Amino acid sequence: MEVSARNFLKTTVKKVVPGTVNTEVTLELAPGVEIVSIITKSSADKLQLTEGKQAYALIKSSDVIVAVD
Amino acid sequence: MEVSARNFLKTTVKKVVPGTVNTEVTLELAPGVEIVSIITKSSADKLQLTEGKQAYALIKSSDVIVAVD
Amino acid sequence: MEVSARNFLKTTVKKVVPGTVNTEVTLELAPGVEIVSIITKSSADKLQLTEGKQAYALIKSSDVIVAVD
Amino acid sequence: MEVSARNFLKTTVKKVVPGTVNTEVTLELAPGVEIVSIITKSSADKLQLTEGKQAYALIKSSDVIVAVD
Amino acid sequence: MEVSARNFLKTTVKKVVPGTVNTEVTLELAPGVEIVSIITKSSADKLQLTEGKQAYALIKSSDVIVAVD
Amino acid sequence: MEVSARNFLKTTVKKVVPGTVNTEVTLELAPGVEIVSIITKSSADKLQLTEGKQAYALIKSSDVIVAVD
Repeated sequence: MEVSARNFLKTTVKKVVPGTVNTEVTLELAPGVEIVSIITKSSADKLQLTEGKQAYALIKSSDVIVAVD
Repeated sequence: MEVSARNFLKTTVKKVVPGTVNTEVTLELAPGVEIVSIITKSSADKLQLTEGKQAYALIKSSDVIVAVD
Repeated sequence: MEVSARNFLKTTVKKVVPGTVNTEVTLELAPGVEIVSIITKSSADKLQLTEGKQAYALIKSSDVIVAVD
Repeated sequence: MEVSARNFLKTTVKKVVPGTVNTEVTLELAPGVEIVSIITKSSADKLQLTEGKQAYALIKSSDVIVAVD
Repeated sequence: MEVSARNFLKTTVKKVVPGTVNTEVTLELAPGVEIVSIITKSSADKLQLTEGKQAYALIKSSDVIVAVD
Repeated sequence: MEVSARNFLKTTVKKVVPGTVNTEVTLELAPGVEIVSIITKSSADKLQLTEGKQAYALIKSSDVIVAVD
């Protein structure tokens, strides 16, 4: 599948922390480089996310804010 | 400064492509791992983004969609 | 592929209007029910969107604002 | 009222599922075509959403990601 | 009309700068407190925004990032 | 620090309401002009938000929808 969002990054699921409503998923982009995603619990269940599984982080380029010191 | 957004990733500016309205900024998170941001031209000018400069990618955790094959 | 976003709607491309920077894509969800998406020109080219082609509209549930009269 | 967001779709409330924090609202755009919205519980109360009520789905065009097989 | 988004702020249009694709709208929330919105040119035309006109800024609470020094 | 987001507004924390998952933060932009932000509880803890504290509201210009009567 192809998507219009510019960032479609290969990752490995590092941690899955289910809450009462949402699940917090930590994805490893590279050794030591992680990105956190919060998705609904039902989505997490549907995707069967478990540590070590390969997943993609899909991020629109307009959702990436740039900051400099 | 501390921000409520969960992802505040250290990056290096890899490429800056100014358009007529927006500027496309490619940020390197790790060797070979890049993320693209689209910001307004006036913001790019204000931040003085140039290749090799250190910058941060600020992404809300709810803006990270997770996908699996 | 499975995605964490709750809305993954089957549509037919109705209209593709390329601009200088972005492309406006009209997707038909059902006869007479359309949704407009604005994506970058490079994404539109990559997806090879043309009228009549089948496509999906991917929308996070938190991006749907509800209004009532 | 007129809004700058491009998508302002007439819908019928199909299902309202209140959680501890958020409420999940399913809106029917056309027979068999539904879209899910997650809003805060206080917003759901304010809007008095009930099954069968007419409502609008307000979606920015830049929040619609396009995907193709 | 009632909307699920938490922030629906009364403002006065302070400046309207049309570009080739988008229009930049500066809205005054209070004397000296301004917020900038970027909308498509076609939306700006539809809303007939002109300096001095009353308008509303509609912002989802999850789109407000909080920062502290 | 400089950010690409156009709106970086000085505010005073008016109210902090912790929930089970998220915290609702009311920020005062000017006397009588408030904006509500919903952030995760862990972010609220990290930022040590308390009433009267100075904080910034960071909002992308594309996240500000404009409406007129």
